Amino acid sequence: MQVNGQAYRSIWLAADGVGVEIIDQTQLPFRFQVVRLERLEDAMEAIRRMLVRGAPLIGATAAYGMCLGVRRATSAQALEEMAHLLIGCRPTAINLRWAVERMVRYLLSLPEEQRLAAAYREAGRICEEDVAANEAIGRHGLTLIRERWRAKPSGEPVHILTHCNGGWLATVDWGTALAPVYAAAAAGIPVHVWVDETRPRNQGASLTAWELAVAGIPHHLLVDNAGGHLMQHGLVDLCIVGSDRTTASGDVCNKIGTYLKALAARDNGVPFYVALPGSTVDWTMDDGVAGIPIEERGMEEVLRIQGEDENGTVRMVAIAPAGTPAVNPAFDVTPARLVSGLITELGLCPASRDGLLGLYPEQGR
Amino acid sequence: MQVNGQAYRSIWLAADGVGVEIIDQTQLPFRFQVVRLERLEDAMEAIRRMLVRGAPLIGATAAYGMCLGVRRATSAQALEEMAHLLIGCRPTAINLRWAVERMVRYLLSLPEEQRLAAAYREAGRICEEDVAANEAIGRHGLTLIRERWRAKPSGEPVHILTHCNGGWLATVDWGTALAPVYAAAAAGIPVHVWVDETRPRNQGASLTAWELAVAGIPHHLLVDNAGGHLMQHGLVDLCIVGSDRTTASGDVCNKIGTYLKALAARDNGVPFYVALPGSTVDWTMDDGVAGIPIEERGMEEVLRIQGEDENGTVRMVAIAPAGTPAVNPAFDVTPARLVSGLITELGLCPASRDGLLGLYPEQGR
Repeated sequence: MQVNGQAYRSIWLAADGVGVEIIDQTQLPFRFQVVRLERLEDAMEAIRRMLVRGAPLIGATAAYGMCLGVRRATSAQALEEMAHLLIGCRPTAINLRWAVERMVRYLLSLPEEQRLAAAYREAGRICEEDVAANEAIGRHGLTLIRERWRAKPSGEPVHILTHCNGGWLATVDWGTALAPVYAAAAAGIPVHVWVDETRPRNQGASLTAWELAVAGIPHHLLVDNAGGHLMQHGLVDLCIVGSDRTTASGDVCNKIGTYLKALAARDNGVPFYVALPGSTVDWTMDDGVAGIPIEERGMEEVLRIQGEDENGTVRMVAIAPAGTPAVNPAFDVTPARLVSGLITELGLCPASRDGLLGLYPEQGR
Repeated sequence: MQVNGQAYRSIWLAADGVGVEIIDQTQLPFRFQVVRLERLEDAMEAIRRMLVRGAPLIGATAAYGMCLGVRRATSAQALEEMAHLLIGCRPTAINLRWAVERMVRYLLSLPEEQRLAAAYREAGRICEEDVAANEAIGRHGLTLIRERWRAKPSGEPVHILTHCNGGWLATVDWGTALAPVYAAAAAGIPVHVWVDETRPRNQGASLTAWELAVAGIPHHLLVDNAGGHLMQHGLVDLCIVGSDRTTASGDVCNKIGTYLKALAARDNGVPFYVALPGSTVDWTMDDGVAGIPIEERGMEEVLRIQGEDENGTVRMVAIAPAGTPAVNPAFDVTPARLVSGLITELGLCPASRDGLLGLYPEQGR
């Protein structure tokens, strides 16, 4: 996507062909800052401290993390160790494990001396595949938006509510939840996005609102509490969110609070779609509520918030009494029964085992 | 309630018997600051700028606002004008209109020269009645908590989720939603409160967490997004919230986001109760979603947040890109079908016309 007139992805190989560059997303929307990753540990830190986030981008960063590790050691044992370290950085997003295991499997199939070059090639392929998948998600999601648009009075935009950031910053490019929005805008369909701020880390306020402003797409920010009220009053045509892990039966794990929006959507007859690449599906799991490990993050994220003061200084401020205990589950699970459908790179399908197997029949064997 | 070893209410007549004193709730939890209201305009400003908030306290402040106005003018026309100004300060809470109209009705029944003294007497009665009503709400709500407690394994606390602040700060004393919690603690029943932070104004983080800490009641703060996840995992025994206006059919208007919690409670079989004094019922209205005017507050509340920096300075920081448009509905309506029951000063009842008329039969005539 374009930022300040220049084309960016969220991660790319540096000009020297060795380092990897990312946008430090903890500094957005206040600073647009590119950070260079040099070593495996830099990639781990970027994932853990959430300089990068979003399931697909975490996967891509981990793939490049393997490259940076392979620069130092290429043995099978070293590969397994790096993989273990990377997978341990965050527990919920399945793409992290998927990308790392793909890298290890591929590299182990090659002689040690070929592994370094091969690692960079494979990481590059993972990125290109992600971009292509998201572009396809955009194309398939566009049909839903176009359908809604045609059903509305002439000239009225389609109002889409999204939670967290499933934009290009969450992937290598295009995004998952926002890919259909970008595709619709490119196709000349008027869209307007309701952006949940997405506490506690405010990825909606700091990333989605920023992305949409940069892309010139009309939007309004709202607190996470407000979406149900908007739906009660007919102000939402469609919800589209991303997914950090989708079970084989169509349960969707996504940013904390997604479940509440899905409940409100069902209560008000608003279609609720989830956009995801196939790499987000965990084929080994059925019951998402019981099975998916939910990352419990530090209470500081709840008790303090980052913002820009009147002098342009970015700082943390405490928003609760000193000593207040807090809990901070980072994701929740929306049962498949609340999901109108999945938007994947291979097309739309019901949020069910049969629906998913219709698109990915090789997983049924 | 006790603060720093001293008994406080949220509003009281100053020692000189003329001015009215309140706690500036916009400064909590960082500063405990008492403010004196001298003129009608001070009371209006306190309501509008939310130095006081919470439906019952808004009503009590407006009643004293009438007293301050009557110090300057006692004619029928002056009374009507003051009433009009006060009622216009905030649109959603019905107690504001209720308290002001009660004051006007009573004062008009008296000769002009008696109105000043009578105004202070009547405002005092409104406050005393509020305290008594909330104390009774606590007693009736206690039966629900005790029931839950007896059904749990021995020694385990009852986990109660609440949204916004229905504590003593929202009323003259005791609170609505928190009155049963305080009553349970006093009765030796172990309780633990899940405190929704309640964006955008964070009354949960800044007021409820503060109140509970001051009272020594175990609690955890969580973002508004997290409640559904807790309920999915059996971590909530009971939800209790307050109400800014309740329709005659039992629809409940409360702080934005309440509706989402009610949906999650129903989806997970968690009882969802609303605590309110009878003065919160709008007997002229049935359909809350269609009928209750929802205050749309400034977008600044969404775009900027108040907190305390590392030097102890309380300041506002921006949390979204400059120029981001926002919407900020302050309340939403939870349809009666999602409410397990109402806790009033006269006892428990179903959230329905018949339920309410069973307790307030005089309204059916």
